[in-house]
Amino acid sequence: MVIQREITLRPQNRGFHLVTTEISTQIPELKTIRHGLLHIFMKHTSASLTLNENADPTVRTDFESYFNKTIPENASYFEHDTEGSDDMQAHLKSSILGSSVSIPITDGRLNLGTWQGIYFCEHRNYGGARELILTLIGEVK
Amino acid sequence: MVIQREITLRPQNRGFHLVTTEISTQIPELKTIRHGLLHIFMKHTSASLTLNENADPTVRTDFESYFNKTIPENASYFEHDTEGSDDMQAHLKSSILGSSVSIPITDGRLNLGTWQGIYFCEHRNYGGARELILTLIGEVK
Amino acid sequence: MVIQREITLRPQNRGFHLVTTEISTQIPELKTIRHGLLHIFMKHTSASLTLNENADPTVRTDFESYFNKTIPENASYFEHDTEGSDDMQAHLKSSILGSSVSIPITDGRLNLGTWQGIYFCEHRNYGGARELILTLIGEVK
Repeated sequence: MVIQREITLRPQNRGFHLVTTEISTQIPELKTIRHGLLHIFMKHTSASLTLNENADPTVRTDFESYFNKTIPENASYFEHDTEGSDDMQAHLKSSILGSSVSIPITDGRLNLGTWQGIYFCEHRNYGGARELILTLIGEVK
Repeated sequence: MVIQREITLRPQNRGFHLVTTEISTQIPELKTIRHGLLHIFMKHTSASLTLNENADPTVRTDFESYFNKTIPENASYFEHDTEGSDDMQAHLKSSILGSSVSIPITDGRLNLGTWQGIYFCEHRNYGGARELILTLIGEVK
Repeated sequence: MVIQREITLRPQNRGFHLVTTEISTQIPELKTIRHGLLHIFMKHTSASLTLNENADPTVRTDFESYFNKTIPENASYFEHDTEGSDDMQAHLKSSILGSSVSIPITDGRLNLGTWQGIYFCEHRNYGGARELILTLIGEVK
């Protein structure tokens, strides 16, 4: 069984945002699956998705600090700068963190670890709404 | 056909460890699949999974050295430090390397390249046993 | 429905190369799928796959510059150096960028964003031809 939905994430500030519930509530067919996978795909090249700690918000703040320190905004050697100083660094972060995550589904729910949540990583200063594609592959209960 | 198993990786020291056999022997249904995918998922936010060179152990040592050099243990700007100096760096490594790998299955075995193996990347000093979920999707032979 | 094909990417210079068409034309069954996923897997540990901007070639040049600056070719602490100075840095890039990408299929085509393309990331100076495995999982139209 394959189910697919195109959804939109509401605009967020540059940084790392917990969106586990915002995503999972938009694919109610999750509840019908015994065993499977949910593939979550970002249709953009300057935002990304990752899994990390879902509790203390300073983890997300530290992510933003770390990636800003290690990926420069205005490297003198960047040639691609027509879309602004936040553009090339956003492309790099997108590939380092990745455009998709795949999460096991077990007995009708995302089988995440206790501390795992889905991060929407917005790398542009003004990224706007972001389109995702959810693809669920699994066996019905 | 979808098969799912929850397995435990035995505790390892901080560093990069080859676990191809430890994982593949825990899902014997692999042998029955003609074409498919094995999704291997880490239910933790301070350890990760990746694929890399399966022969010379100094590759794994160099991985540990490189990631320790580029991701600081005690950055002055980290705010999340209540769980010890090895905590925030572990979360960052987990997202850079990733929480899962997906490997093609062909004729009943993992279709890895000659030099590819699965690395269990333990980023905490004392991480303990780690839970994984294996999800196999494929067509039976 | 699961379809699998083993394909070869023609040799490329060290750097980042757009291969969306070179890959998608080698799995014509794409056109028959209503909803599904295409998993693209690199059978090597010194090359990688990622998704990023498909228009301006300077994005790819800047990727090569950035990763060369941040991942050293001859770090004094590297122990694995028997295969040349471009070897260990290639293994590290391969794990940071990743060995595979998974892309949703919708109505017979890869459902990429307007600006998304598939990058073949060659990290060795002389990598040669590279083997990929394409695994398509989906429902027929």
